[in-house]
Amino acid sequence: MAVPEIHFCRRCGHAVEQRIPPLEDRSRAVCPHCGYVDYVNPLNVVGTVPVWTGEDGQPRILLCRRAIEPRRGYWTLPAGFMEVGETAAEGAARETREEAGARIELEGLFAVLDAVRVRQVHLFYRARLLDLDLAPGPETIENALVGLDEIPWDRLAFHSVRRVLQDWIDDHRRGRFDVHTGSVERTR
Amino acid sequence: MAVPEIHFCRRCGHAVEQRIPPLEDRSRAVCPHCGYVDYVNPLNVVGTVPVWTGEDGQPRILLCRRAIEPRRGYWTLPAGFMEVGETAAEGAARETREEAGARIELEGLFAVLDAVRVRQVHLFYRARLLDLDLAPGPETIENALVGLDEIPWDRLAFHSVRRVLQDWIDDHRRGRFDVHTGSVERTR
Repeated sequence: MAVPEIHFCRRCGHAVEQRIPPLEDRSRAVCPHCGYVDYVNPLNVVGTVPVWTGEDGQPRILLCRRAIEPRRGYWTLPAGFMEVGETAAEGAARETREEAGARIELEGLFAVLDAVRVRQVHLFYRARLLDLDLAPGPETIENALVGLDEIPWDRLAFHSVRRVLQDWIDDHRRGRFDVHTGSVERTR
Repeated sequence: MAVPEIHFCRRCGHAVEQRIPPLEDRSRAVCPHCGYVDYVNPLNVVGTVPVWTGEDGQPRILLCRRAIEPRRGYWTLPAGFMEVGETAAEGAARETREEAGARIELEGLFAVLDAVRVRQVHLFYRARLLDLDLAPGPETIENALVGLDEIPWDRLAFHSVRRVLQDWIDDHRRGRFDVHTGSVERTR
């Protein structure tokens, strides 16, 4: 969402010049009229690594090609902003349904990645695709099931998606899945 | 922070009747004048389980008695709202410093707990206390280092703190620490 540089106090309607303080400065935008402090907090992005294992025993990962900015036309894992009224895992399953029409069984938390510059925390869950009845949603141009040697590494939308895919493949090859943490400098 | 039932559009200053939609309804508050959609998203609470291991080899956990509402006078682990410009782990260390004056070494993610009703996700990290120079901050009445058989279970501030302490003690006894996930119905 776009955030204006000048906004109006949500409590009293008075104009406030600065809503988002510089990243280096922890001070908040305070309404000069009523003193209301407009906190800005990081948002959670929740998504999944949906996997289909065919009769050959080889896993294939569900990717979505983005129909919207940022990074329109690039490939991503299904993910989006967590909403109120749902758990992080429920949000991840909802996004998977919305962006790929996919029915999944969640298998556990896989990654918690800080994206400080864009003020987000990305939470990804491992998931098993229950069938192959996919239906791209309005935010998706097309879906694809890709083998581990078919990942479009140079056409991925975000750094966190690249990290999650790399970690998933590494964990799959050694036969044990951990929960991964860390920071991604940029999301694209 | 208190959130008013009637607020003013942050983009155009027009009055908007409802800011927080009912939990069951995912619709957002939309400004009737300019169409600005005021998203409401869950917030992250970040904290630590700070542990001191004395010469007897027995771990003791740092707790804080709350000087502020909600749950003033009850015991909690150091934790608070994650801010922009920091990773979740950095926020957890900051809260530990602010609420107990404690210097710690972070040891890894320990719990990711959904608190859906209060629209929060609680992230806790394992931590090692570097020294015993504690100094309660303005939100803390007093600090205490408690043995595993001294936890004030009936005087804990929040359900997530109870869950994290129980999981930490269980993991300590079996000699392996996992990343724990789940939901807490209420935080108090």
